[in-house]
Amino acid sequence: MLALFTDFGHEGPYVGQMKAVLGRLAPNVPIVDLMHDAPSFDARAAGYLLAATASPFPPRSVFVGVVDPGVGTARRAIVIRAGGYWFVGPDNGLFDPLCQMFDDPVRWEIQWRPERLSSSFHGRDLFAPVAARLALGEAPKHIGCRVLAEPLPAVPADWPRIIYSDRFGNLVTGIRASGMDTNAVLEAGGRRLEYARTFGEAPFGAPFWYANSSDLVELAVNRGSAADLLSLAVGDEIAVLPR
Amino acid sequence: MLALFTDFGHEGPYVGQMKAVLGRLAPNVPIVDLMHDAPSFDARAAGYLLAATASPFPPRSVFVGVVDPGVGTARRAIVIRAGGYWFVGPDNGLFDPLCQMFDDPVRWEIQWRPERLSSSFHGRDLFAPVAARLALGEAPKHIGCRVLAEPLPAVPADWPRIIYSDRFGNLVTGIRASGMDTNAVLEAGGRRLEYARTFGEAPFGAPFWYANSSDLVELAVNRGSAADLLSLAVGDEIAVLPR
Amino acid sequence: MLALFTDFGHEGPYVGQMKAVLGRLAPNVPIVDLMHDAPSFDARAAGYLLAATASPFPPRSVFVGVVDPGVGTARRAIVIRAGGYWFVGPDNGLFDPLCQMFDDPVRWEIQWRPERLSSSFHGRDLFAPVAARLALGEAPKHIGCRVLAEPLPAVPADWPRIIYSDRFGNLVTGIRASGMDTNAVLEAGGRRLEYARTFGEAPFGAPFWYANSSDLVELAVNRGSAADLLSLAVGDEIAVLPR
Repeated sequence: MLALFTDFGHEGPYVGQMKAVLGRLAPNVPIVDLMHDAPSFDARAAGYLLAATASPFPPRSVFVGVVDPGVGTARRAIVIRAGGYWFVGPDNGLFDPLCQMFDDPVRWEIQWRPERLSSSFHGRDLFAPVAARLALGEAPKHIGCRVLAEPLPAVPADWPRIIYSDRFGNLVTGIRASGMDTNAVLEAGGRRLEYARTFGEAPFGAPFWYANSSDLVELAVNRGSAADLLSLAVGDEIAVLPR
Repeated sequence: MLALFTDFGHEGPYVGQMKAVLGRLAPNVPIVDLMHDAPSFDARAAGYLLAATASPFPPRSVFVGVVDPGVGTARRAIVIRAGGYWFVGPDNGLFDPLCQMFDDPVRWEIQWRPERLSSSFHGRDLFAPVAARLALGEAPKHIGCRVLAEPLPAVPADWPRIIYSDRFGNLVTGIRASGMDTNAVLEAGGRRLEYARTFGEAPFGAPFWYANSSDLVELAVNRGSAADLLSLAVGDEIAVLPR
Repeated sequence: MLALFTDFGHEGPYVGQMKAVLGRLAPNVPIVDLMHDAPSFDARAAGYLLAATASPFPPRSVFVGVVDPGVGTARRAIVIRAGGYWFVGPDNGLFDPLCQMFDDPVRWEIQWRPERLSSSFHGRDLFAPVAARLALGEAPKHIGCRVLAEPLPAVPADWPRIIYSDRFGNLVTGIRASGMDTNAVLEAGGRRLEYARTFGEAPFGAPFWYANSSDLVELAVNRGSAADLLSLAVGDEIAVLPR
C-alpha cells in the first residue's frame, strides 16, 4: 500500500498528480490518503503526527511524506525503513521521530534525480517515483539510494507541544497517552487540565485531556474549542505537572 | 465495493486510517468516499441522505456509515442487509430510513469486539474490520453478529425537513421528488416555493424547489443561497401545502 | 486510469456517486481525483488548467471533465482524443485549449443517452458511463458517438489571464513558462513583476513570477498572497510587457 502524508490540502492538482505518477509506475498498488493537512511549517510536529498515525497501515506500506518548506533548497531527499514500513521524503526533521520510535531504522540518501525535476514539486517528480519502486519491492540501492552511515537523529520519544489542531479545535500533542497516568495534570494555555475518558465525562465548557485514537494525549473541551479556549496553536508548549 | 459515508470531513488522519484497515483486510476491494460531510449531530437526517444517495453503487456494496455522536457510550453496533447492499455502523437512527425504503431489510447486532477498541474511533476499530469481512463475502454469523429479532424501526418514507445544506446554500430535504406533483407548493422559512425544472427556469433571486439528482426535493435560489434567504439549516421543518 | 477534473468540491455525494458509476462499469480501472476545485464559471480558464495538469497521467488515461454551468441546457456532450488521452464532458470551451495544444485531436459528439438522465448531474449519468467504456477500450462509435467533422475550435496557445488561485493566494496564469524569457516583465494588478526561480529568491512582500510545476507562469509573493496584494481573481487579465 502507498500512503500519502502531506500539507498540500485537497485543493489544486497536487495530490492528483502525485497519484498519477504513483499509479503509472506501480499500477496495482492501492494508494491511500493518510492526511493532507499536516502542519505546514513545522516538520518536527508533522513527524510526531506521522509516527503516531501510521500503525493501522499494513506491513511494507510505503509512506510518501511531504512537509517540505525547503523544497528547491539543498536539503537532502531520503528513504527510511523502520518498523516494517518505508518512508520517502525530505530530510528536514519530518522522519526523525519515527527513527526513534519504530524498530530497526535504516536511512538512505536518494541520489537519483529524474530527467525533469521541478523546483517546487519534488513530491511528484522525485519522491513519488522512488516510492513507487519501493512499493514494487525494489531495493533502495537499485534505485539510486546510498545508505547513510551517520548516527540517527536523536529526538525525545514524547514531544510536549501541540502538533495538530483539528477542525473542532481539539489539540493533539506529541505525548504518548499510554505512558501517562490518568491522574496526571497538564498545564496548557495557563489552565490546568485533568483526564477524562470521553467527552461525555467532562463538564461542559471545561478543558480536559484524553487518550486519542492514535495513542496521543489530546486537549479538548466538551462542546467547545480547546484551541480557542486555551489560545494554543501548532508548536506551542504544554507541561505535564509534577505530582 | 466499499463505500464510506461519514461526518469526519477530509481533514486529519481519520478517513485515511479507516481505509488503511479496510485495505489491509480486503486488499482487492475498491473503496469509494460517498461523502464525509454528512450532518454531524442529526443521525436521522444523515440516514435519509444515505438512503437517497446509495443507489449508484453496485449490488453487494458495503457501506460503512459513521455519524456517531454517541461513540463510546452504550449504543449498539449493527449490520444491515437491505436492497442488495450491506450497511455497518452505529444503531442510532442512521440506518432506520433505509430499513423502510430498501427491500428485504435484515439486521444484526455486532457482538464481536477487536482486541483494541479505542473509545472515540469505532469507525476504524470496529466497523471497518466488520465491513471488510462482509465485502469479502463472509456471512454476519461468522463474524460475530447475531440476528436482531425485534421489529424494524418505523420511520416515515418522506421526511419534510432539511437534511443537507451544500456549499452553495442549496437545501436538500428528505422528501422524495418522484412522489411530488410539480404543481405542489412548499412552505419553507416563511416563503412559498413553486417548482422549477432547472435553475435557469427560475427568476433571479426567487427561491424554488426542484427534483435533485438523488430524487429528493431540493430548495434553491437562482444565483443565490437558499440557506441564507430562508434562514434554514439541517433539521429545520418545511411543509408541503395542501392543494 | 480514469481521472476526474471538476468544480464539484469535495463536499456532498457528487464525486462519490461518479466514482460508484465508474467503478461499477470499469471495476479494475484505477480512479484518480486530478482536481475538484476547477474554476466554476469559466470553462475556458478551467480548460487551460486541464491542458497543463494532465501530462503526469499515463497514456490512454480517460479524463472526465465537468465544469458545466450549462448542464441541462442544449450544449453538446463530447469525447475528444488528443495527445494519447481521452476526454469526456460538455462542449462549452473546457476542451478547446487541449485541442490546440495536444497532438492529433479528434472530436466526437455523444449521441447516446442513458435511460435516466437527471437534469443537473450529467457527470454521473452521461459522462461517467461513456468514460468507463472508453477506459475499457471500447471505440467511440460503438458507444453512441459520432465524429465531428467541423473544424477544431481555435484558441491561443497562451492565455494571459488568471486561471486558478490557490489557497495561499498564488495566481496561476494560462501562459506557458517554457516559452518565456526569464528577463520578461509582467504587469498584473497595476504592478510590475520580475522573475524569480523560487520563493526564497524573491524579497519578502514583493510580487514576482515563476515557472510553476505545471509549466505555467504563476504570480506569487514570498510569505504573502498575490491574490490579495494584486487584487486579482480568476479571469482577470495580465500583460507581458514588451522588451
